[in-house]
Amino acid sequence: MDPRVITERPVVRVTVGAPREHLQDNLAGEEPLEIRIDGRSFAVTMRTPGADFDLGAGFLVSEGVITHADELVDVRYCDDLGAVGAARDNIVDLTLRNDVAPPDESVARAFFTTSSCGLCGKASIDAVRTRSAFEVRDDPLRVTPDWLATLPGRLQDAQDVFEQTGGLHGAALFDGPTGELLVVREDVGRHNAVDKVIGWALQERRLPLRGVILLVSGRASFELVQKALMASIPMLCAVSAPSSLAADLAEESGITLVGFLRDPSLVVYTGEERLLPY
Amino acid sequence: MDPRVITERPVVRVTVGAPREHLQDNLAGEEPLEIRIDGRSFAVTMRTPGADFDLGAGFLVSEGVITHADELVDVRYCDDLGAVGAARDNIVDLTLRNDVAPPDESVARAFFTTSSCGLCGKASIDAVRTRSAFEVRDDPLRVTPDWLATLPGRLQDAQDVFEQTGGLHGAALFDGPTGELLVVREDVGRHNAVDKVIGWALQERRLPLRGVILLVSGRASFELVQKALMASIPMLCAVSAPSSLAADLAEESGITLVGFLRDPSLVVYTGEERLLPY
Repeated sequence: MDPRVITERPVVRVTVGAPREHLQDNLAGEEPLEIRIDGRSFAVTMRTPGADFDLGAGFLVSEGVITHADELVDVRYCDDLGAVGAARDNIVDLTLRNDVAPPDESVARAFFTTSSCGLCGKASIDAVRTRSAFEVRDDPLRVTPDWLATLPGRLQDAQDVFEQTGGLHGAALFDGPTGELLVVREDVGRHNAVDKVIGWALQERRLPLRGVILLVSGRASFELVQKALMASIPMLCAVSAPSSLAADLAEESGITLVGFLRDPSLVVYTGEERLLPY
Repeated sequence: MDPRVITERPVVRVTVGAPREHLQDNLAGEEPLEIRIDGRSFAVTMRTPGADFDLGAGFLVSEGVITHADELVDVRYCDDLGAVGAARDNIVDLTLRNDVAPPDESVARAFFTTSSCGLCGKASIDAVRTRSAFEVRDDPLRVTPDWLATLPGRLQDAQDVFEQTGGLHGAALFDGPTGELLVVREDVGRHNAVDKVIGWALQERRLPLRGVILLVSGRASFELVQKALMASIPMLCAVSAPSSLAADLAEESGITLVGFLRDPSLVVYTGEERLLPY
């Protein structure tokens, strides 16, 4: 494993009424990653090193720049002669096929402010929906609650780092029809973990991700539902609570949104029709 | 309370082997907020409505634009004639004193990429440290572990919304010498909750926040340590794990970083000298 994924560090454990313990603790790695598109700097995100090409590719999908592996000609670490060590591995260069328009630098902001009705939740939803190349409402995925309830345990078993540091979010894709765990990625940022699984899927030529469930540790925000929609994922499950706008976007898009997924129960916020009776 | 802070929504609770329950659930509100500085759009963040002026003011402090209340001449909601309802309340206009330089639009990115040594954790730390107007290393704050262990319970008691939705992060400031809880703010985004408490402190003319403890629910990232430093907070405590770069920046800056703060124990990552023996 990349030593930057987990960093060891001396710490002091203090328990009230007990002697102090000096020990070594493992911390989740965090380093900046610069994302360059066709040689131009586009974004910097603080992420856990590892699966950086997946992160870069998934970022392009989430931002609505590409939807097919063929549109991404090359992914590599920066090969400037001057860059060495961590600096080199903290810059990902993505090359688009020459008929693919690179994104505007202000794309993230434009997502929310292009609507003429002003800045509000409804405008944000409309902006994201307009941008998505896929339609998930007709996805025939159906799952049983008892199978769904087993997924958090499977995610946790597959997360190597989480157990050691308590510091990393996990995201996983499960195939509905076969029940198979397709991929797991971890990151200090939940949005990065999701971009990593989506970028993996793009490179495996699995987009649109029909019939697939995206599971995330923690909460479900608007941004995560947006990413699910951009990759055509019909069901998003979170171990904790969703936000109001996450539920609104899921409803408008035909995504099934499940929260508080903790064996043996769960809460369905939208798209109940994909939950079989038992 | 602003009805947008909590939104009610029909949901279905599914428990394996039991009948489905249709009930009303409370979700944490999430809406976009556009931050304008001297009339120019600067950033859009997804936040929980409420304490928006605190959020806007705290954002300016975190970004290194201002350090004193006098530098912020006015904070108001957008008063464009065309903007109504949510759209109006989702735009905060901040007016700087005319000798204060407005930030570069790329300030967030510049934070990480201006260093000549390339993009790495060390460069990020140097960039943040150069930017901070304050020095926290000499802050004489001292606390006992047993008092510190009581803080998460006090934060939770003070968080009205969290209990109802499970969906909001909390951030609080405690005064070390008096033990007083100064302020609590909540948000779907942890960084927003922290900007809200810092913005409150700015407007109360309490910057630099010497002798103060910042407590956050969840994890401590590089970004949160950065915000603490920009507001001159000598101690950051998190209920969960910090990242490696959070610990590195805390160490370089002289901030005491405490993680896994869960009565009756805690882990000290940096700055142990501020923890009294008992």
